[in-house]
Amino acid sequence: MTRSWAAGPFAVDYEQRVDFSALRAGRLARARAQMRGHGLDALLVWKDENVRYLTSLRPQLIAGKSGLLSGALLLPEGDPILFASGGDADRAQRAMPWLAEIHAIPILEERGLVDHFVRVILADVLRRQRLDAACIGIDLASQTLHDALRERHPRVQWTDGDAAMQAARLTKLPEEVVLVEEAVAIAEAVTQAALDALRPGVRELDVAAEAMRTLYHLGGEYAHVTTPFVASGERMAPPTRLATDKVIRHGDLVFIDIGAMWNGYFADVGRTAICGEPSAEQRRIFRAAHEAHHSGIEAMRPGATTADVARAIRRAAEAHALAGRFLTLFMGHGIGVGANEPPYVGEPFPGAAEVALQPGMLFAMEPLIWVPDVPGGGGVRFEDMVLITEQGPRRLSRLPYDRALLAG
Amino acid sequence: MTRSWAAGPFAVDYEQRVDFSALRAGRLARARAQMRGHGLDALLVWKDENVRYLTSLRPQLIAGKSGLLSGALLLPEGDPILFASGGDADRAQRAMPWLAEIHAIPILEERGLVDHFVRVILADVLRRQRLDAACIGIDLASQTLHDALRERHPRVQWTDGDAAMQAARLTKLPEEVVLVEEAVAIAEAVTQAALDALRPGVRELDVAAEAMRTLYHLGGEYAHVTTPFVASGERMAPPTRLATDKVIRHGDLVFIDIGAMWNGYFADVGRTAICGEPSAEQRRIFRAAHEAHHSGIEAMRPGATTADVARAIRRAAEAHALAGRFLTLFMGHGIGVGANEPPYVGEPFPGAAEVALQPGMLFAMEPLIWVPDVPGGGGVRFEDMVLITEQGPRRLSRLPYDRALLAG
Repeated sequence: MTRSWAAGPFAVDYEQRVDFSALRAGRLARARAQMRGHGLDALLVWKDENVRYLTSLRPQLIAGKSGLLSGALLLPEGDPILFASGGDADRAQRAMPWLAEIHAIPILEERGLVDHFVRVILADVLRRQRLDAACIGIDLASQTLHDALRERHPRVQWTDGDAAMQAARLTKLPEEVVLVEEAVAIAEAVTQAALDALRPGVRELDVAAEAMRTLYHLGGEYAHVTTPFVASGERMAPPTRLATDKVIRHGDLVFIDIGAMWNGYFADVGRTAICGEPSAEQRRIFRAAHEAHHSGIEAMRPGATTADVARAIRRAAEAHALAGRFLTLFMGHGIGVGANEPPYVGEPFPGAAEVALQPGMLFAMEPLIWVPDVPGGGGVRFEDMVLITEQGPRRLSRLPYDRALLAG
Repeated sequence: MTRSWAAGPFAVDYEQRVDFSALRAGRLARARAQMRGHGLDALLVWKDENVRYLTSLRPQLIAGKSGLLSGALLLPEGDPILFASGGDADRAQRAMPWLAEIHAIPILEERGLVDHFVRVILADVLRRQRLDAACIGIDLASQTLHDALRERHPRVQWTDGDAAMQAARLTKLPEEVVLVEEAVAIAEAVTQAALDALRPGVRELDVAAEAMRTLYHLGGEYAHVTTPFVASGERMAPPTRLATDKVIRHGDLVFIDIGAMWNGYFADVGRTAICGEPSAEQRRIFRAAHEAHHSGIEAMRPGATTADVARAIRRAAEAHALAGRFLTLFMGHGIGVGANEPPYVGEPFPGAAEVALQPGMLFAMEPLIWVPDVPGGGGVRFEDMVLITEQGPRRLSRLPYDRALLAG
């Protein structure tokens, strides 16, 4: 599986597209290797992305309820055990034959319900699986769930399991790349729909509306950002990272960053465009940000570290006297079943790991430079999907950059 | 403030609409009262809805990252302290003068970054606020954050704070109801756009696309469900609670449940319609579900309990021999800044609190009955927003129910 283009989302008999069995087997093997490597007897995950990675569950997601709706327990052998919302469990039983054991659970938010889950549903599983005194890694949970786990299962050692999941997901399987290619194709169409909707007099949220319509028509499960990001003019300096009721005007820089997820994999793509004619200052910032962005991508070769890449980006901005104008945010992030995931490139806070790039790592690169007090806004970002290969960086996104801003 | 209709979303000089100062003061007073009542010295919240409730932060939300992006610390006095993503912090500093202290933070997912936040950023705040040995309530967090809080601040008693936040949010302020009315108007328009898009030959995801476009055009911040729920025909029995590529056919029952959020408040509205002509069996199920739904709403009077309401719904379904066909999910849930929140009505799992209804409580009522093996599907749900008042239940949603299914 070395396909490097998006062939289409259908299931077809006339060519090999996605081998979902190989995908599931490969993901489980990676998660188990890291589980062992981290000294864990089992993994109990609640993050949407980790549950998807281990079980392929596509659940109903309710706004703000990540970590509260479904979970999965990974054991050293056998199928993962799924804890699904009662509203999803009947369907999952019929539609997901690769799972042998599915339990319906309530939302883990009200104390009595959390206690019932831990004391009855989970306790039975732990007893049958001989995990009563095991070391179990967990990723995210409500404080109520944490307290109940400790109180009701005091012999279990509850510890961090997210580092193991992050390590398992660090490089992508060939089958994952095939899915990412489809997600990128959708994300580009989403961005194009937004660009096509741009004209003086529309609001940021009108642009977002057209983009989101395209996302769903093409089968995107949801956007990379729950809050579609369309920021125009002065709203990009500093960035308002969502779409508001602001009217887009002549001379506004407009940034679009919405992305797409398909079959569990995210694509995160962004572009800055001009509404009408740019000013000389806007062109200057745009060209500097463009140069910095591509200097970073150029540096993304196996063996180079995330810090090397960040340095390349900063050096290019320095040449334009804009190195002090980056957003207080990473310039790039890992991506896959997680919308954002480690490793980070150019993380401004201390503590992020410096990671050497390996083939199979996938990044969304997105340095953002903003300059205050530029009429029509002085904020510019590009965002592209970059796969690390033996031969160097492969840019999966193909959208062109605004010609009027690049020229001159 | 007893307005009971949606006046429009604009800020206008010519009439009183939303008093945001009263809203913020009222929410803080309620949270502090519950904080004291639960014996907490402070509340450290990470759930999107709790951060919004305490600070009015409208952040960028990234898919699957609830609980990892922004936080707030509530103290007995003074403004809440906001921990915002580095990408949001500059804007928040300029745009939110009601907050005196805002700290930029990284995503709390990678171990080194979590440790930096806990050891440096949070430690400084706790020391200045004399909370080094306090009892602090917390709602949701990664295991890494839990571990770091305990290790780095061992004299603090970290305990559940979500029960206090749930109690604070249990009844709605008049200003909150005004915002909910707007959210309901948007949610109804979203549902209507989906109903208007229904015809044989379109796919569920095409219907979702038109609905989501309407959501953003009207200024909805996002949908109640991150996965817009359009299920047709056999996909409603058992329910597939999202929109798929299934083609909608003559004789399919089609259920739509997407909703809207506006200025932090959710409206959750759903309708079942027929594509073409219903069968006698589909009409029978529809009328029974309709009767059960309205029997429940009729019972929602101050003093009645959540269990009384569930009994009324079940009794009506029993009269049609359909009491055994409810989805394994609650029949109604609290709603407000949370998309779903306690109290629950008809929760099938043991442990949910039986709660007496009080004026100011707000519910989304949504019993779902599904019968297998009905051609075109035998799944029906209605969902309406219901405010408890001294005079009884007030239905905020006004969409009519499908006439072809109701007749006969």
